[in-house]
Amino acid sequence: MLVHSLILLLAAGALHVESFVSTHSALRTSTFTNNAQSLNKAASKLQALEMKLGDPDEPVVIIGVAADSGCGKSTFMRRLTNIFGGSSVGPLGGGFGNGGWETNTLVSDLTTVICLDDYHLNDRNGRKVSGRTALHTDEQKFDLMTEQLSALKRGESVMKPIYNHVNGTLDTPEEVKPTPIVIIEGLHPFVDERVRDLLDFTIYLDISDEIKFAWKIQRDMMERGHSLESIQASIEARKPDFDAYIAPQRAQADVVLQVLPTKLVPEDKEGKILRTRLIQKENVKNFETAYLFDEGSTINWIPCGRKLTCSFPGIKFAYGPDTYFDNEVSVLEMDGQFDNLQELIYVEGFLSNTGTKFYGELTQNILKLSDSPGSNNGTGFLQTVIALKLREIYEKITTSQAEAA
Amino acid sequence: MLVHSLILLLAAGALHVESFVSTHSALRTSTFTNNAQSLNKAASKLQALEMKLGDPDEPVVIIGVAADSGCGKSTFMRRLTNIFGGSSVGPLGGGFGNGGWETNTLVSDLTTVICLDDYHLNDRNGRKVSGRTALHTDEQKFDLMTEQLSALKRGESVMKPIYNHVNGTLDTPEEVKPTPIVIIEGLHPFVDERVRDLLDFTIYLDISDEIKFAWKIQRDMMERGHSLESIQASIEARKPDFDAYIAPQRAQADVVLQVLPTKLVPEDKEGKILRTRLIQKENVKNFETAYLFDEGSTINWIPCGRKLTCSFPGIKFAYGPDTYFDNEVSVLEMDGQFDNLQELIYVEGFLSNTGTKFYGELTQNILKLSDSPGSNNGTGFLQTVIALKLREIYEKITTSQAEAA
Repeated sequence: MLVHSLILLLAAGALHVESFVSTHSALRTSTFTNNAQSLNKAASKLQALEMKLGDPDEPVVIIGVAADSGCGKSTFMRRLTNIFGGSSVGPLGGGFGNGGWETNTLVSDLTTVICLDDYHLNDRNGRKVSGRTALHTDEQKFDLMTEQLSALKRGESVMKPIYNHVNGTLDTPEEVKPTPIVIIEGLHPFVDERVRDLLDFTIYLDISDEIKFAWKIQRDMMERGHSLESIQASIEARKPDFDAYIAPQRAQADVVLQVLPTKLVPEDKEGKILRTRLIQKENVKNFETAYLFDEGSTINWIPCGRKLTCSFPGIKFAYGPDTYFDNEVSVLEMDGQFDNLQELIYVEGFLSNTGTKFYGELTQNILKLSDSPGSNNGTGFLQTVIALKLREIYEKITTSQAEAA
Repeated sequence: MLVHSLILLLAAGALHVESFVSTHSALRTSTFTNNAQSLNKAASKLQALEMKLGDPDEPVVIIGVAADSGCGKSTFMRRLTNIFGGSSVGPLGGGFGNGGWETNTLVSDLTTVICLDDYHLNDRNGRKVSGRTALHTDEQKFDLMTEQLSALKRGESVMKPIYNHVNGTLDTPEEVKPTPIVIIEGLHPFVDERVRDLLDFTIYLDISDEIKFAWKIQRDMMERGHSLESIQASIEARKPDFDAYIAPQRAQADVVLQVLPTKLVPEDKEGKILRTRLIQKENVKNFETAYLFDEGSTINWIPCGRKLTCSFPGIKFAYGPDTYFDNEVSVLEMDGQFDNLQELIYVEGFLSNTGTKFYGELTQNILKLSDSPGSNNGTGFLQTVIALKLREIYEKITTSQAEAA
């Protein structure tokens, strides 16, 4: 099994595994032994998972992802659905071609991703009347959201509304069938207590204002010809409602993925090199926080040195306990970016509790989507860690429910 | 063998090994497996070592330790001789009682420690005539030093002079017989190239001016009633010759043990909490540098956290590559002090290449001399690492010479 996984990894990209492994033989031997065992376990679990597909008694696990619009969620969703496998990832019903409307829902064999914009109370014209932005909590249909998520959790299909982003209209609802994993992503997944209670795990994507601004300049100024002033104005206009209705949800999240400017380059304004932090709440059911080297201690690590030579400005990791919104958390941080695969696999060797089933699986999953934005930096790295942890959580829930039955 | 060593460790002090070990089972399993093998090897080596005692064909390994006078060398020498074992550690010839003179030489079954002050050219009165301090290189008999160390290395006894520190006189020489390990410690072990070439390993004890001053205040002002001004004056008077003749030897040392003020407490003037740094030269024959977590990378580690609760101001470790006098080095650093054994053994678990033969041996050796100064801080910790590395170097030299014969 071990050899098999290494071959997979080698197939994924050019890699000098041998020279690397030999220098870490002691550590590796133990990791590999454990991995061989967990691989066997994993294989039988995966088989069980595949057999359960479509089983009405199979639990539906619902995961909430909170984020501002346009913050790299589509890549994140691909990373999540990718980990759970499933061959046909795509829009529900085949998209545009099917019935003339556009869906926001993404489905694969195992997962359904619902965009919460579909639960907007009013269309664009309606909001002109109400005088509220789409960020306002009064502009969401939380009753319907609760009702439909409850139904999906019970294994029942629902007729979910569609918010058309192009026209700003509310279109004809579409049928959503329950899948083992349902991900709800959008502006308000943890605002309503009833919705929150239906969620098995909660994630908040927290892009700092500096990075949002840098990304918006890249997209709206460079690519769409907007002026710097108009971009600044649109961000400023959005900020009060964002701070009032969206940001407070960070306190409710099991994990927060922060994206910040690098500290490796002083005064970096471009937002190309990122510092990313995974803030992991402690004592969350089915969730063991990922760590670097030594659980519960405080670590700073620059892997670049004699064994690994990184180009400027290098890579820096940090790990340690902290407090976040009065909760005990463990923070895993990466600043900088990877130049090549060897750096990735080297780092993976010193991480624990990442939810991988064999050494190299984290690297392998990042490589699968290597063309997607963020694959060479901490967003890709930590989003993949989150994806692996979600798989682990999913398996723990299904195993414990199967044992209870 | 493994169980035996753990029992020894438990006997050395109250320790909850079990709870600690269980949290590190994966890492421990691999360490223990390797240790079991290396213990067997070590046992046979030790047996060979004991059999060789007194064998005229046995190589004499000479180690040089450079340091200012009165910088905790006697404790360091005890740590070194302790690692090599030998039951009767004490002054050569039984000290005062034997023949009426005082010796500076310390002997055990395996080791001889020669104080280089015995090679002073003039007595105290003679230096009044020469107008030079004892720090001056022209005040040392390097020809005789070379001649006698060469003889010892060949397995021949020598009649070594004695410098009487009490009277400042040169006393009747004493006979020094070769032992498997000869340590020369003093002001000028690496100044003369011929002496340097006889040394198998070189160590420089580098106490920073701030710490020297703090220690001198403690001893000379608190205990002997000297004034602050007179202490300051004596340090200042000594400094030019020290900088000219002693300090440059740092460039020649295989390892430098730096003792500095703590960085954990801002503006700490007492010199009670120490920051210690082991600067280890790379590419030295028979010497593999000790490291923390990941060889060749840069690490900062505060072990105090969820598993280990340290009292103020805590403990901080650092490790990483650096350049020192144009040489490539690896630096292992400890700031702060240990409160109890659990912290020590916890830290030992994350160190590699320390020269130990089983997990816990480093801790065990520090505990053996727990009443000696520095046992709860980085001086005791890093001096013990040096002692273990010296044993390893000694064994490599004897093994390679035995194989060559």
